[in-house]
Amino acid sequence: MNIFVLTLFPQMFSSVFGESMMKRAFASGVANIEYVDFRQYATDKHHTVDDTPFGGGAGMLLKPEPLFAAMDDIHERHGVVPPPAGRVILLSPQGRRFNQEVAREYAACERLTFLCGHYEGFDDRVRQHLVTEELSLGDFVMTGGEIAAMAVIDTVVRLLPGVLGNAGSLEDESHTARLLEYPQYTRPASFRGMDVPPTLLSGNHQLIAKWRRKHALYRTWRERPDLLDGLNLDDEQAQWLQQFERGDFRDIDIP
Amino acid sequence: MNIFVLTLFPQMFSSVFGESMMKRAFASGVANIEYVDFRQYATDKHHTVDDTPFGGGAGMLLKPEPLFAAMDDIHERHGVVPPPAGRVILLSPQGRRFNQEVAREYAACERLTFLCGHYEGFDDRVRQHLVTEELSLGDFVMTGGEIAAMAVIDTVVRLLPGVLGNAGSLEDESHTARLLEYPQYTRPASFRGMDVPPTLLSGNHQLIAKWRRKHALYRTWRERPDLLDGLNLDDEQAQWLQQFERGDFRDIDIP
Repeated sequence: MNIFVLTLFPQMFSSVFGESMMKRAFASGVANIEYVDFRQYATDKHHTVDDTPFGGGAGMLLKPEPLFAAMDDIHERHGVVPPPAGRVILLSPQGRRFNQEVAREYAACERLTFLCGHYEGFDDRVRQHLVTEELSLGDFVMTGGEIAAMAVIDTVVRLLPGVLGNAGSLEDESHTARLLEYPQYTRPASFRGMDVPPTLLSGNHQLIAKWRRKHALYRTWRERPDLLDGLNLDDEQAQWLQQFERGDFRDIDIP
Repeated sequence: MNIFVLTLFPQMFSSVFGESMMKRAFASGVANIEYVDFRQYATDKHHTVDDTPFGGGAGMLLKPEPLFAAMDDIHERHGVVPPPAGRVILLSPQGRRFNQEVAREYAACERLTFLCGHYEGFDDRVRQHLVTEELSLGDFVMTGGEIAAMAVIDTVVRLLPGVLGNAGSLEDESHTARLLEYPQYTRPASFRGMDVPPTLLSGNHQLIAKWRRKHALYRTWRERPDLLDGLNLDDEQAQWLQQFERGDFRDIDIP
């Protein structure tokens, strides 16, 4: 996969993706990422990228020319990849909501290009003619699109084959398995009077597996009961739910 | 406001918040931010922060001691701020969903502390005894909590008095005004055959204001009709909606 990020702040990305798992992913070549500072494509002496809106109003807008010129340059150097294999994504609170399903869709793409504005908005011709989709991280407003682009890139690249060391990790986690995760503990077994539940120290794998199933269900029932709607419960789970509903928490080791 | 970020990767934050509006916000003192590398609080020779889970399973967990010790140190140096004025937030896909309302709630706090795990999970004693709330950016899974913490911090700090140069900007935007934003344009008026709608060049402020109201409504109707549910429409808006429903787009200048 090839990823292009059009931004006025490329160094934000290089430090975030210069660490840990993303660093290894990009070093291994499973994905390539290029940061394109579109200020370089402004042709006037001062490299102006923004201007006041026609018709008046507060704030500045990103001008169309530098963004179109930066995209032209990408197309010249790397060819054009039309949608659906190539996506040009504008980060905006007005867009389609990003989630794990969108991430899987993007993970199958050949090229992702992200347009990040930094607190200015875009001239609408960019939205109308340059991007293939607007994407929103959620119902909140940030000073720019950079952090949202990082979140999307991190989520998508993590799904690419070979990025997670342990392939099992992808299947275990929340949003895949529909239940919240069971609590996990590591050494020390006792810390400041807080003890690891004894079952987990028992070495009895059957008991441990049952403890985990029950506590995953309990945590979900307590914190995200909406996730249980429409879920196919097995007999064991149905019985446990009845127990919780009665206020009977005798085997439950977490607050 | 005082912000503390417990992370193994403090340099990710310093470069992202070392630019633009966030840089100015932290330089002006409207908010202070401190990055706490909790690896420094691991007491063994190798500064170990993670270990295998009790009871078996894939992956590593963050050990409780370094995180509790890092929090103790913050409390010793800066005192304890109990909730609701002080919040200790664990970023996790299992948490409460972040949005602009949560951001406003956080913006009124005296201290926010963020716990970022980097692809390992936390020993559950951290979740049970150290944090006041779990927070989720959305239904997707990232390699760590760092980017999510950045998104929350950016959204919250942006709301603090004096951070946005133009106070009007806060009120105009989506998620505050309930409608999507109207399209905006800047120079050049004509670019590669794409022209700015003539009304916006007319200098007639009444016509421009009307154009903007109509196009904000049109864009919302086309892209996010759910936002119109339960909205109190005025007569003008009701009439325009009827026009759109009839398929009559005669004054609409955007695709």
